[in-house]
Amino acid sequence: MYVSELKRAIGKKTVDTLIKNNMKIGLGSGSTALGAVLRISERVKKGSLSNIILVPTSFQTEVECMRLGLHLRSLSDPAIDGKLDITIDGADEVDSQWLLTKGGGGALLLEKIVAYASLRYVVMIEQRKLVKCLGEKLPLPVEIVPEALTTAAQRLQLLGAKTNLRMAKVKAGPVITDHGNFILDANFKQQYDPIKMDQDIMMIPGVMANGIFTRHVDHLFIGHDNGRVEHRHSI
Amino acid sequence: MYVSELKRAIGKKTVDTLIKNNMKIGLGSGSTALGAVLRISERVKKGSLSNIILVPTSFQTEVECMRLGLHLRSLSDPAIDGKLDITIDGADEVDSQWLLTKGGGGALLLEKIVAYASLRYVVMIEQRKLVKCLGEKLPLPVEIVPEALTTAAQRLQLLGAKTNLRMAKVKAGPVITDHGNFILDANFKQQYDPIKMDQDIMMIPGVMANGIFTRHVDHLFIGHDNGRVEHRHSI
Repeated sequence: MYVSELKRAIGKKTVDTLIKNNMKIGLGSGSTALGAVLRISERVKKGSLSNIILVPTSFQTEVECMRLGLHLRSLSDPAIDGKLDITIDGADEVDSQWLLTKGGGGALLLEKIVAYASLRYVVMIEQRKLVKCLGEKLPLPVEIVPEALTTAAQRLQLLGAKTNLRMAKVKAGPVITDHGNFILDANFKQQYDPIKMDQDIMMIPGVMANGIFTRHVDHLFIGHDNGRVEHRHSI
Repeated sequence: MYVSELKRAIGKKTVDTLIKNNMKIGLGSGSTALGAVLRISERVKKGSLSNIILVPTSFQTEVECMRLGLHLRSLSDPAIDGKLDITIDGADEVDSQWLLTKGGGGALLLEKIVAYASLRYVVMIEQRKLVKCLGEKLPLPVEIVPEALTTAAQRLQLLGAKTNLRMAKVKAGPVITDHGNFILDANFKQQYDPIKMDQDIMMIPGVMANGIFTRHVDHLFIGHDNGRVEHRHSI
């Protein structure tokens, strides 16, 4: 997969700043996360990073890691037992409180499981992903079982959203996620409270995941247009 | 599938009391729900019930309806548009406030979607399913994606439960639900607040559904050991 120079730089800085030997690491999905995967692979090959354990968040990351010769494990592997040291991931939007939306790539379900299994959570973005409020640039992805297509859309409407079933480009019909589900992209007319909206959406029967990520972000790496990668810590 | 005399009687009374021509009807799963399906089939064949639209909640109900020659539709069918007149369903436990647990048969995900899509919700049980508090007789089923096996179990533990992965009897390994997921059966040591517990469980990443049903029950039909079927209205 094509990964831009800036995304490679973000991945390099993130990995070189935070990833150490013997770590258990969750790997996000999308091209920004792949920038970090490329750097991990480089350092493993050079021998400057060893004995790490990697857990992927999508078929995309899995396939990419296999291509790079990186071994993957499952979160339920006894060596991991559901607990990762760190997860590095991209995001679609980051607001001023470091709340996120994710799911443009449709990997939100597993990305959320892995994010919440991690002691530290690290987000890497390009500058343009910074927003004043979530939903400003992109609709919110909501993963649903196919049977809830109409009912979940109606419930999201009651929460203030217009929804579109995400359609595939190179297969007929809707996008099917890695877990066999549909994605409704929800456009909210009004600004919403992310923590409350996350809870309200998860109580809709047939919703599997939504793109609002409210877990604490420990580090934010921002790639600026001039090529500089900025590292911000949480307090 | 075998349906006892008492369950047939419960289904007969429920259908004959509440089901009318032209209704859009959600059909639960399990042998009690099948008692009602048998009665619907009988009346359709006799011609005393017509122009009904049926939506199933599991492969079980679907297969049984096909065997009986009953036509099924999806909740997203334009004739339904996500809105049913009534759903008739069984339950594993019913407490004094008519809150339920379901999912012994593993159909909880679709049962919940259909229940919440219905104007009226009708529950049919045998007397022994009445409990003082939920969890008294049975563990709570929690449907999870396979990747969340360890992490969801750990989170349920934090909520006070010991969990068991439900194992299949006539296939190797765990039970796989109609949606390809696992079921964790959660045994809570302490009594819990069902509305709060439902919300807490649904915020665990990787949880697809749980067996606590808090939606308003309009009618409760109870089959007593002496064969009498009691009908209770909600206020």
